Amino acid sequence: MSGRIGNLMSVRDDIKVFDVTLRDGGLCNDFRFDDEFVKALYRANLESGVDYMEFGYKSSKKLFKQSDFGKWKFCDEEDIRAAIGNKDPMMKISVMADVGRCDFKTDFLKKEDSVIDMVRVACYIHQIPAAVEMIEHLHGLGYETTCNIMAVSQANTNQIESALQMIGASSVDVIYLVDSFGSFYPESVMELAQLYMDTAHANGKRAGFHAHNNQNLAFANTIETLSYGVSYLDCSAMGMGRGAGNCATELLLGFLRNPRYSLYGVLEFIEKYMLPLKASGIKWGYDLQYLFTGQLNRHPREAINFTAEGRSDYCEFYKSLLENY
Amino acid sequence: MSGRIGNLMSVRDDIKVFDVTLRDGGLCNDFRFDDEFVKALYRANLESGVDYMEFGYKSSKKLFKQSDFGKWKFCDEEDIRAAIGNKDPMMKISVMADVGRCDFKTDFLKKEDSVIDMVRVACYIHQIPAAVEMIEHLHGLGYETTCNIMAVSQANTNQIESALQMIGASSVDVIYLVDSFGSFYPESVMELAQLYMDTAHANGKRAGFHAHNNQNLAFANTIETLSYGVSYLDCSAMGMGRGAGNCATELLLGFLRNPRYSLYGVLEFIEKYMLPLKASGIKWGYDLQYLFTGQLNRHPREAINFTAEGRSDYCEFYKSLLENY
Repeated sequence: MSGRIGNLMSVRDDIKVFDVTLRDGGLCNDFRFDDEFVKALYRANLESGVDYMEFGYKSSKKLFKQSDFGKWKFCDEEDIRAAIGNKDPMMKISVMADVGRCDFKTDFLKKEDSVIDMVRVACYIHQIPAAVEMIEHLHGLGYETTCNIMAVSQANTNQIESALQMIGASSVDVIYLVDSFGSFYPESVMELAQLYMDTAHANGKRAGFHAHNNQNLAFANTIETLSYGVSYLDCSAMGMGRGAGNCATELLLGFLRNPRYSLYGVLEFIEKYMLPLKASGIKWGYDLQYLFTGQLNRHPREAINFTAEGRSDYCEFYKSLLENY
Repeated sequence: MSGRIGNLMSVRDDIKVFDVTLRDGGLCNDFRFDDEFVKALYRANLESGVDYMEFGYKSSKKLFKQSDFGKWKFCDEEDIRAAIGNKDPMMKISVMADVGRCDFKTDFLKKEDSVIDMVRVACYIHQIPAAVEMIEHLHGLGYETTCNIMAVSQANTNQIESALQMIGASSVDVIYLVDSFGSFYPESVMELAQLYMDTAHANGKRAGFHAHNNQNLAFANTIETLSYGVSYLDCSAMGMGRGAGNCATELLLGFLRNPRYSLYGVLEFIEKYMLPLKASGIKWGYDLQYLFTGQLNRHPREAINFTAEGRSDYCEFYKSLLENY
């Protein structure tokens, strides 16, 4: 097992700050961000030294009606190009594609013709073979790839080890540990991070971490996995993301000691774009209903409904969760 | 150095859940909690298995005008008795007294005549000799005592070691690590927790931890120190406390595996009393201005003013903090 790397003063050149505001945040507003917002976020991320920016999902237009969502559910090449203007090579562009919910064989250009640098393949643990098929196809087109195994807090260690072995043998560049339900504590995430790092080391790959803030631990878990060698770190402006949200970019940037990161760009963006977005009624962030589902290691869907209904009867809600265990 | 004790499934009988809602929360509303609120909190804590409840400060009536504050700034015996009715021996009662801001020689009864069980002595590191004098006096009266050394994030390790040596040689029962500015990360707080535990072990005492949530790490830091043997854990309903607030009781109770703790009492209290308090305009909790002062290891006073003025120009504020470094 690998131990901690460096200390609180170290600079780690392998670290990649990965903005998922549009992608995970898009789950809060059906991906309806306008071009001004997207362009401003792109500029802000560049100014703050963010390494990757994820624009949304590459979803199947056969499975999802385009009129039901904003365009970042589909991330067409021309939409990305129109929103950002000239692409700056200092920051890479990513999209996410879910196993079983995208048309990966037809919807991706060759990398050389695309504005996209990386495709992140999200799957559940039983879908690993399908994820590997996607990864190999996308790798063949020239993209950087990741595999984001979701909901591992409900899988057992044997399953996770098998999954890591299959992913480790693939062409994938980065293996992502994902705390889908915000149920991990620093101690539990540290053990998994070591497991993922062992696979990454053995196969010349990197590891990443995607947190959720159900128990106010998104940032804590992120810097815990970081200290054990995980290098791709997901975050979003003001922690915007489904339910309790993600690790906040402003927390992460302020923690990193590398002078190439700076808070200002993201702060200006938050002031000008995120505060009005929040004021408009789009909801995300820590609250007790998410704490309950996190503690119980459950999908946050019931907590999201509780929030949408404007409820605050925490006790009743908690009791109902325990009854439906 | 002591290592981790137990794991995420363990029950630790030395753990004490310590509610500071009235005391640290009182800093948000000048201690103006009415008796109904206090009584309901007392009952809720009992129902949830909380071990200690702190009612406020025992402040000098010579230094502070009683008309400027609610009664929990002074914690008169008869006020505590009137608010709680019959005292339940299952939960102990605490008050805090600041070195140099209380009249400890005249304002405390003998323990046998008092409703109070514990006095927590708060001091800065240069006040340790004065704290020890207070501790010995209060110990002589029969109280349990703690020493809460504030602002240690701005002290160097030599100073902290000297302070711990002096406190270790005193009659104090519990030595508290306090993250006054919310500037500690789990890694830094782990090192200090081990230092405090070494002193505690060597002198037959316990250690405690008081967090602040400036960087959304109050709960994370609390369970990190806990895993290294710290046993007195401060928390408050909905994290109510000065500035970014404290570790939330509901997060901590949900984490602990001992069946004597239960969420319901505190949840009902939050629904019935804390939500209306928050809706009335009393302000506390994580926001970017507190993140900045936490990251910069500074007193939160400027962030508290920023909040009180209803400002949201984070960039300007951050720049002004850096200019006044």
